[in-house]
Amino acid sequence: MNMRTNRDRLQKLLTEIAAFGGTDRGGVSRLALTDEDRDARDQLKRWFAEAGAEIKVDTIGNMFFILRGKQLHLPPVMTGSHCDSQPEGGRFDGILGIIAGLEIMYTLRDAGIQLERDLIVVNWTNEEGSRFTPGTTGSGYFAGKLDRDKMYALTDRNGLTLGDELERIGYKGQEDFDPRPMYANFEYHIEQGPVLEQRGIRIGVPKGIVCLRWYDIEVQGVPNHVGPTPMNARQDALYAFALMGKRIYELGLAADNVVASVGEVHPTPNSRNVIAGHVHFTIDIRGWNEQETDRVCQEVERSLIELAKEAGCEVAINKVWEVDRAPFDESLIALVHSTARDLGLTSLDMVSGASHDTIYINKDTPSAMIFVPSIGGRSHAEVECTSWEDCAAGADVLLGAVIKTGNSLNELPAIDRSLY
Amino acid sequence: MNMRTNRDRLQKLLTEIAAFGGTDRGGVSRLALTDEDRDARDQLKRWFAEAGAEIKVDTIGNMFFILRGKQLHLPPVMTGSHCDSQPEGGRFDGILGIIAGLEIMYTLRDAGIQLERDLIVVNWTNEEGSRFTPGTTGSGYFAGKLDRDKMYALTDRNGLTLGDELERIGYKGQEDFDPRPMYANFEYHIEQGPVLEQRGIRIGVPKGIVCLRWYDIEVQGVPNHVGPTPMNARQDALYAFALMGKRIYELGLAADNVVASVGEVHPTPNSRNVIAGHVHFTIDIRGWNEQETDRVCQEVERSLIELAKEAGCEVAINKVWEVDRAPFDESLIALVHSTARDLGLTSLDMVSGASHDTIYINKDTPSAMIFVPSIGGRSHAEVECTSWEDCAAGADVLLGAVIKTGNSLNELPAIDRSLY
Repeated sequence: MNMRTNRDRLQKLLTEIAAFGGTDRGGVSRLALTDEDRDARDQLKRWFAEAGAEIKVDTIGNMFFILRGKQLHLPPVMTGSHCDSQPEGGRFDGILGIIAGLEIMYTLRDAGIQLERDLIVVNWTNEEGSRFTPGTTGSGYFAGKLDRDKMYALTDRNGLTLGDELERIGYKGQEDFDPRPMYANFEYHIEQGPVLEQRGIRIGVPKGIVCLRWYDIEVQGVPNHVGPTPMNARQDALYAFALMGKRIYELGLAADNVVASVGEVHPTPNSRNVIAGHVHFTIDIRGWNEQETDRVCQEVERSLIELAKEAGCEVAINKVWEVDRAPFDESLIALVHSTARDLGLTSLDMVSGASHDTIYINKDTPSAMIFVPSIGGRSHAEVECTSWEDCAAGADVLLGAVIKTGNSLNELPAIDRSLY
Repeated sequence: MNMRTNRDRLQKLLTEIAAFGGTDRGGVSRLALTDEDRDARDQLKRWFAEAGAEIKVDTIGNMFFILRGKQLHLPPVMTGSHCDSQPEGGRFDGILGIIAGLEIMYTLRDAGIQLERDLIVVNWTNEEGSRFTPGTTGSGYFAGKLDRDKMYALTDRNGLTLGDELERIGYKGQEDFDPRPMYANFEYHIEQGPVLEQRGIRIGVPKGIVCLRWYDIEVQGVPNHVGPTPMNARQDALYAFALMGKRIYELGLAADNVVASVGEVHPTPNSRNVIAGHVHFTIDIRGWNEQETDRVCQEVERSLIELAKEAGCEVAINKVWEVDRAPFDESLIALVHSTARDLGLTSLDMVSGASHDTIYINKDTPSAMIFVPSIGGRSHAEVECTSWEDCAAGADVLLGAVIKTGNSLNELPAIDRSLY
């Protein structure tokens, strides 16, 4: 009981893989299907082979590393994440979940343990979506939610297609691999937010992934020369935006666990001495409670109309994307909590504000995630960091969860309600 | 007394010149030193020659059309403006002042009148600055405030230089022309704001051009993934901007005849699901009263620091340009008012919120401007419009002012204080 991973080896593996696309400032630029992604994939193949895993690559480039269990007829256990990164991204986002899976295979090999069930560590293709949009391409295709030919046809900035690039780097498999039904899926990931660090807790256990609403907003004012147009005769689309940006933030702040964000603003003509005639901007609203999230959306919509009028402008409100929340499996959530507790690690019920490949896998496989603290809450940036202690703690929890599910002959483990 | 211009001919001339660079939607795209600018210049040469004017082109391409007076030793009277336009600009901005000068020469010719003084109508090169920045190039060079070689070296978006383009279109003169000292200078222009129309007044008489302060502002926050970052743990540079944009507008609105405008906003990374880590934006503050303008500047600066703190961000405030106000000549202002009154036209003391070539000429020649209403206050846009009646009314006022000064053998005419 309470087997642990090899902390020094985990650190060494994470350090070595960070060299593929490593940047001068300690980050990683390893965009999907670039040479850097290919080199990292090649390295993963060598390491997983050494750990005794079989390797399969499907037609969208997902890599499955399979450590055979004793009873091949039992549904397998899956873990993993993605090895692509944002441009000038961090060295932990995604890859931590794959390297921890690798370290677990090494640990099992060293201890001479063969699980009852197959253990599959997966590398999902193009999670980030930075080079080819949309992201979570590999897991979305695996889940039957994304069309392969459409994904092959996605182009990057230089007009290269995802299909051609998969072929070029040698990761377009001949056939698909479908291990379903699966017994359980765990994705181990950095938190990418500040909550665990602020509360001094080692392990985060998301109840699921929040729901999401995206808006495109068009504000129409009247462009005019700034000099001769008195303040009280303006229809200034940027002033309308300022009122709206302030209000959206305040509505998010006042709500119960909802975040409301403006990320993009594009004024026209965006000229120093012309009153903006038009502003396009985006809103991203997320929350665990769908009712509370939709209440905020309604208040935002009502406010935009009121504030446009206040600024003498028109507003067009377009809701462009809507994703339901994804609640994870309660028994697996409980299992992660109890595993952390057994290892002497504090754990916290939380939600994932970011999307992950598991949002797709969760659709037909009981799933849970394991979070470890992000220093300063920073992610999608070169300064992204998680302490080696925390990396190892999360890997130990993953190992415990993998052993318990991998050796379980039951249906899913019973829920320990005392942890909620 | 009360001679008037020929309204039909003025309308015909304005309509014909608007064809050079005319757009489908009734506007004009006649950027400085393009083929369209050249063709309009060529047409002006033909027309002014017909009106009996001599023509001189200086080394920066300014065109001087000179109608000789009886007494060549007397300082001349100048009027004019610019024939270049904004991209997709209007058909009155600038060119109205030149065509009205042309119409005055025709009117004088038709009436067999020769003024005592020379009358010079000028077309200043590159007022708008849309193709080559900065603008008011020709008048700035004439005033000795801009260096010719630096102006020749200005490049447009395609890397073409102002000097080469002047040469290409045949308007780089061999030598400069300096008619100073001059007796008086009048620039006749559309208002480009809504004041005259709103107040139902025919003629605007600016006391001068407002003072101006330009700022570049840098707001530094912390970029983070929008999903996992709670509202109360953000340092959102766009939220800081929203607070600032709202406050700047409010400070302008509350001030006494000051305008405070934000024209440009550039967030980074400007991505839908990333909290903005940085925002660059610009502020333009103008007013007739320099003390009140500087009080607003101080309040804006104080507010930016306060609001950056409120949003958990840092702010850097850079004042990048400062122009003193340019008060026009009081006796010429009075002359314009009295001329309008004699013609039965209402006139209004106002200020010019926009800059004009006359800001430079005013430095060593007594100057005044004549404004006519802009429908809806619109300018720098294809919808820019002034009624033919108002175009003619302004030309009549200009004619009266030109005759009075052109025939005056005094120093400057006495001020009629009753008009203030």
